[in-house]
Amino acid sequence: MRFAVAPSGFKESLDAPAVAAAIAAGIRRVELDAVIDEIPLVDGGEGSAKALAVARGGRIIPVTVTGPVGRAVDSHFAMLDDHTAALDMAAAAGLRLVPRSHRDPGLTTTYGVGELIRAALDHGARTILVGCGDSGTCDGGAGALEALGARILDVDAQALGQSGYALTAAAKLDVSSLDSRLADTEIIAAVNPYNLLTSVSQVFGPQKGATPDQVAILAEAMDRWADVLAGHCGLDLRPMPGSGASGGLGAGLAGALNAKLIPRFDVLLDHTDLDSRLAKADLVITAEGTIDYQTPRGKIPAEVATRAKRHGKPVIALAGTIGDGAHHAYATGIDAYAGILSAPVRLAEAIDHAAELLTDATERALKLVNVGAAMK
Amino acid sequence: MRFAVAPSGFKESLDAPAVAAAIAAGIRRVELDAVIDEIPLVDGGEGSAKALAVARGGRIIPVTVTGPVGRAVDSHFAMLDDHTAALDMAAAAGLRLVPRSHRDPGLTTTYGVGELIRAALDHGARTILVGCGDSGTCDGGAGALEALGARILDVDAQALGQSGYALTAAAKLDVSSLDSRLADTEIIAAVNPYNLLTSVSQVFGPQKGATPDQVAILAEAMDRWADVLAGHCGLDLRPMPGSGASGGLGAGLAGALNAKLIPRFDVLLDHTDLDSRLAKADLVITAEGTIDYQTPRGKIPAEVATRAKRHGKPVIALAGTIGDGAHHAYATGIDAYAGILSAPVRLAEAIDHAAELLTDATERALKLVNVGAAMK
Repeated sequence: MRFAVAPSGFKESLDAPAVAAAIAAGIRRVELDAVIDEIPLVDGGEGSAKALAVARGGRIIPVTVTGPVGRAVDSHFAMLDDHTAALDMAAAAGLRLVPRSHRDPGLTTTYGVGELIRAALDHGARTILVGCGDSGTCDGGAGALEALGARILDVDAQALGQSGYALTAAAKLDVSSLDSRLADTEIIAAVNPYNLLTSVSQVFGPQKGATPDQVAILAEAMDRWADVLAGHCGLDLRPMPGSGASGGLGAGLAGALNAKLIPRFDVLLDHTDLDSRLAKADLVITAEGTIDYQTPRGKIPAEVATRAKRHGKPVIALAGTIGDGAHHAYATGIDAYAGILSAPVRLAEAIDHAAELLTDATERALKLVNVGAAMK
Repeated sequence: MRFAVAPSGFKESLDAPAVAAAIAAGIRRVELDAVIDEIPLVDGGEGSAKALAVARGGRIIPVTVTGPVGRAVDSHFAMLDDHTAALDMAAAAGLRLVPRSHRDPGLTTTYGVGELIRAALDHGARTILVGCGDSGTCDGGAGALEALGARILDVDAQALGQSGYALTAAAKLDVSSLDSRLADTEIIAAVNPYNLLTSVSQVFGPQKGATPDQVAILAEAMDRWADVLAGHCGLDLRPMPGSGASGGLGAGLAGALNAKLIPRFDVLLDHTDLDSRLAKADLVITAEGTIDYQTPRGKIPAEVATRAKRHGKPVIALAGTIGDGAHHAYATGIDAYAGILSAPVRLAEAIDHAAELLTDATERALKLVNVGAAMK
């Protein structure tokens, strides 16, 4: 029996290779002679640059940048070749870098993302791939633009502070001091196209620690920011697919730096032979930290299932948490899904034991599959 | 497709008929034309007497008795015919009747169980079936015996207080004032035969709220009590199957009243046609609150699976909690098991939503079965 194990990482817990390994261990408990193809998938979130460097024979450059709450953090980007860089926004402004006591996405900044872009320019990059995912920010990319020399001004032409909340007073984008190398640099943002600037604060704000009141202020800030960007580039970015990616970083890069917003899964497919590997499997197992109403909206299990179904392959999805609206996942080609929890437990405890829980859950799921296989 | 749904109740949450109904609802979500035989099983725990009354056309007699912490509780027993009564010890001394703030099994009493037996005698019963399960006590049945006129004395021939702890000072059992009707009454205790007096405090004490120190005192008390009972009836009850049932109630009834200890599942089978109903099913689904290392030791899912396997039927077990050593369940004939939890949650919350969780979990499990059925 041939298995394709194509999971996402579990946010704040296991990276994608660790998830794939835990699932493979569960398969081996049930199918001793299984042939297992581990295809860990990253789609713009943490680990994307490293995965691309491995796939393309590139190298990782360590950089210290300003983190999301203003403290210096050890970060990195990848030079894929002499002129192409790849970076994860999460490596400079990810939710993981925001201490739980500081989780207010109206106060965090993408300034470090701009510093990574500048470092890539220093290394000769003229094409820069910016992976958007796992962000801890909602500043519309304003911090990143400031790190690159742009200034965001209020109605009195005074520079604003760096934060999402400050954008409620934004009136003008001043790019006169922008790093001149950006003029002949292509910025490509790998985004979830379902994330729009109009809804990013409502959909993701709470996950990043915002209260309902804070979400409302951020919604107003993103709306104001869209007006300012439109005044600069002549385009209303609100409905653009991916404009809301990483707390509006997509919109900031597109509006100020003319970045292209590309669906992150397409970027990923340029660098793996996922489709041909799915085609060889008897059973496809995917996974993500959560399966819920958002799963069909560009999440890895949905993308894997859609592609597996083109080859008629059965797909099982495993999830740390099965949330509201999970049954919508069936429409994407996921035939069955299972949670990994075995007992009442706090989230932190589940995160600590995620690998073991995942292996056990894989075993239980395959035992159920085998019940069906043994029946007429 | 024919399903036999033969679950236990979920302790402190759903009774067996409610568990069966929740599972059936999940089946119908996946198999629209399923034929479902709901066989809720009770095995001496809460609901046994009512279930037997339904099966045998008996009637329920309400009685107010002394509860496990001394407060009066509304209880009941069943008259199955003019001379046969059935009662649940849990209806007078169950864990559910012990407020969480009072959960020290060294202080609770089975006195109310004795009162139920007396009430059954008053109604003309000469055969009394005592269901042992779901107890909140560890008094070796001493309270029940006292309610029936027995006295437990210390070395100075002084009567002891009613509790498990008091038994550490027990020296003699005085049955001179025992209810005289017991002499020509048959007491049958329906027990889990794997529960022994030697280990009951260690195995079940913690579930009933005992600390390690309290468990040690209770172990000493049960040992002393076994000596006293041996002095009375001439038999060491420690290794007798079921002597530890319901905190040693089995031993007390056997040693003082010459009760027969019968495996509770055999008692149950006298009153349902479980075997023939399992034989008609394509798939058997069983369930219990917890699946763990204790499951093979006489728990309902194990007994159901053992019997289903005699007819070659596949068996799935669903559980509120999957605990340590759950994989031992496979040896009983359970082919696959699944937990019902979907997200990190506190126990109390899981209990509140048990029916909905169970229905969802049934749906997920059958979807996995169908993945297997659709494969070659």
